[in-house]
Amino acid sequence: MIDWADRAWPGAVKPEWFAGQSEGRLAKPLGITQFGVNLVTLAPGAYSALRHWHAAEDEFVHVLSGELVLIDDHGEHVLTAGSSAGFPAGVANGHHLVNRSEAPATFLAVGSRRPGDEVVTYLDDEVGVVRK
Amino acid sequence: MIDWADRAWPGAVKPEWFAGQSEGRLAKPLGITQFGVNLVTLAPGAYSALRHWHAAEDEFVHVLSGELVLIDDHGEHVLTAGSSAGFPAGVANGHHLVNRSEAPATFLAVGSRRPGDEVVTYLDDEVGVVRK
Repeated sequence: MIDWADRAWPGAVKPEWFAGQSEGRLAKPLGITQFGVNLVTLAPGAYSALRHWHAAEDEFVHVLSGELVLIDDHGEHVLTAGSSAGFPAGVANGHHLVNRSEAPATFLAVGSRRPGDEVVTYLDDEVGVVRK
Repeated sequence: MIDWADRAWPGAVKPEWFAGQSEGRLAKPLGITQFGVNLVTLAPGAYSALRHWHAAEDEFVHVLSGELVLIDDHGEHVLTAGSSAGFPAGVANGHHLVNRSEAPATFLAVGSRRPGDEVVTYLDDEVGVVRK
């Protein structure tokens, strides 16, 4: 757990990036354990996560409504309703989604569950590597 | 592969059940191998699949538009946009989706990929058990 309030250095992680993010777990309550499915809403200005990549778990997103900007090592990519993006396990392509529009945007995020094998590597801040 | 045209016994599998089903793979072209994500459209009258359950693979569906009827061992359940349903691996609850409305309906289907471990058991017909 990161205490955002203690991390106020210039240019680094800012708590307000995540204030407009809300997430609901759809698959876990239904007994699904091999992958997770989250329904995520980003308010204008909000970020999905710190920019990161997964060592062991595949990750996939599908935009349901609104407009989002995917930022990864290849640049910036606009995603609209019906767009998908995938991040295969072990590919060191740090990524996250940002809502730069004036309206909320929603997407489904699917990720496999490989606790024990998984390492998440974060970029652009001092969080570094997190094992889970 | 089943030759539907040869299977015309009363009450069994009918080819027209699937004529209105179209499916696009979203995750595979993006390099995702640990799970599959299919965008499925069912025309009025179409079925998602024969009623079945998976031995090794979790399965999850999320309705994007329209109205579908989930048929499983517990009966019939109407699903509308935003509804989810989950089918954990190894639970012998035969299920499928049917579009009984007058308009097309779309859903995302997520399934883990465990070739070698997987056995699909079909109900309501003579297909029986299929290993993959």
